[in-house]
Amino acid sequence: MICVLSGGTGGAKFVDGLRQVMPAEEITIVVNTGDDLLWWGLYVSPDIDSITYVLSGMLSRERGWGVKGDTFLCLQAMGQLGEPTWFHAGDRDLAVHLLRSRLLAEGKTLLEATSVICGKLGVKARILPMSNSRVETRIDTPVGELSFEEYFVQRWYQDPVKSVRFAGVSDAEPAPGVIDAISSADAVVIAPSNPVTSIGPILAVPGIREALVSARGKIASVSPIVGNSPVAGPAGILMAAQGLPCSIAGVVQAYEDFLDVLICDTRDARAADALRKAGLRVQCTQTIMRSADDKAALAREVLSFVVGDLIKEEPSANTAFRRVSQP
Amino acid sequence: MICVLSGGTGGAKFVDGLRQVMPAEEITIVVNTGDDLLWWGLYVSPDIDSITYVLSGMLSRERGWGVKGDTFLCLQAMGQLGEPTWFHAGDRDLAVHLLRSRLLAEGKTLLEATSVICGKLGVKARILPMSNSRVETRIDTPVGELSFEEYFVQRWYQDPVKSVRFAGVSDAEPAPGVIDAISSADAVVIAPSNPVTSIGPILAVPGIREALVSARGKIASVSPIVGNSPVAGPAGILMAAQGLPCSIAGVVQAYEDFLDVLICDTRDARAADALRKAGLRVQCTQTIMRSADDKAALAREVLSFVVGDLIKEEPSANTAFRRVSQP
Repeated sequence: MICVLSGGTGGAKFVDGLRQVMPAEEITIVVNTGDDLLWWGLYVSPDIDSITYVLSGMLSRERGWGVKGDTFLCLQAMGQLGEPTWFHAGDRDLAVHLLRSRLLAEGKTLLEATSVICGKLGVKARILPMSNSRVETRIDTPVGELSFEEYFVQRWYQDPVKSVRFAGVSDAEPAPGVIDAISSADAVVIAPSNPVTSIGPILAVPGIREALVSARGKIASVSPIVGNSPVAGPAGILMAAQGLPCSIAGVVQAYEDFLDVLICDTRDARAADALRKAGLRVQCTQTIMRSADDKAALAREVLSFVVGDLIKEEPSANTAFRRVSQP
Repeated sequence: MICVLSGGTGGAKFVDGLRQVMPAEEITIVVNTGDDLLWWGLYVSPDIDSITYVLSGMLSRERGWGVKGDTFLCLQAMGQLGEPTWFHAGDRDLAVHLLRSRLLAEGKTLLEATSVICGKLGVKARILPMSNSRVETRIDTPVGELSFEEYFVQRWYQDPVKSVRFAGVSDAEPAPGVIDAISSADAVVIAPSNPVTSIGPILAVPGIREALVSARGKIASVSPIVGNSPVAGPAGILMAAQGLPCSIAGVVQAYEDFLDVLICDTRDARAADALRKAGLRVQCTQTIMRSADDKAALAREVLSFVVGDLIKEEPSANTAFRRVSQP
């Protein structure tokens, strides 16, 4: 069993590779829900949707989000009604938002609603929202506090970021199955997702970070930063706002209390050496995922690093980085 | 001011004509809401939608319902999710359902939500739901009690009808403005709608029938029955279930306590004579509305009968038919 922590388009791409190289039934994905929003009165969970669409073969790979071949006529009509249109919910995509919203209105939890939708779409991997509680990533900027989707989609992450918080997280509990999935996995892989707003909300749910620190399997992170720049999106700005350098060292710093293996791009070989000298296990490989083959190759390499012979034969050298987190 | 009572496709067609021959600002339409349904968790009001679409120029005239040029991709996707697909909500159509549902969830009344949507779509006529309360037309059949849309759309009105009731109507109040619109109108026109399930629910709302009986303007009905058959839909079956003959006499019987003028098709000239002998004013004209010109011509004729010189010059001969209804 492999447990993946994921959010954003990088996470979806990584899971797209993973499903090519191992049985979907053996994958559990713990997904960020800090980006969730009420859109046109519907409950939309962008990161759960992306993972659901990737695993059901429905994801638009051109866009990296939404349903392939989707149309946007409802969106156009909403614009004519004077409603906001900056979040691009497609016509086919709406079906998932409608069904989830109805299930939630009927009293189902987000996990239960996710399971129903995954079942209908033939998703064999297990998708777990990080929590059934509402946790909202809030970005403080000079124009005020924004939701993540307002900051990222509506305003194209143009605003300087003062700080990031996860509203509601202190009262949140991990969704049923999350702690067990982390604790019992043969390996935990942190997808190449934004450490602050994709993985950060997951780690902020009380109990999840502790479960990672005490997990029995190896914990690897695929760096979303290559050559001191994020592969996509605002990770650099957000990491800076959290006091993290935009580098593979910054990624390690975000996860230092539980990380066993950092997987970074070959372009970061020099920075990798420095981290190795500090005692961390670092593997360099090709991490940019353009084609289906790129994705499969990265997934295969990551698996070999965390559960393959390589890991079994070498002693772990990461004790310096593995310590219990201080709440 | 003209007040129209309307429901169904016949009502929408009639209003489509009326808007061509008089200023929209002088039309108030009191609309049946007995067909309203929760569909995919959204509040859908088929008759309000049809009138809204007709008055905003959005109605699909080919289908007689929904938005012209609409697509049904969300519906397809809903089918893939195992959700029901028998009610054909289009992608553009969904925008209105989404906005209305959100407004209702925010605490707005159905009238307020309708006004917001009409304002956004540039509708200049006034559309009033018969009531802000939920009134549900229920059709008792051998397979059980069905909602109107289940009976009509899902099951193609194939089931024998034992009876019809309007659940919730005894506790319902007319929406604000309904009684005044009826009472103060220069004329009230009952559209060529099904007397049982389109006009019946409106008349069953406490106070509306009484307002018609005491209305100052003439009250005309355009018969939806031509030559002992309904122009469209299950009116005949439903009238029979309510003990009404499927004929222009049956239409008169449904409205006998307030009707001043029956407008029927020229094909019913003989039956019209019989009604005239019984003391009712009856006007025969071409009532089948195929083209935009047909609709305009019928609307113009109806207006001439109810507010034109003809009416002003002739004494009303309908006192035999006009009596206070017995509750």
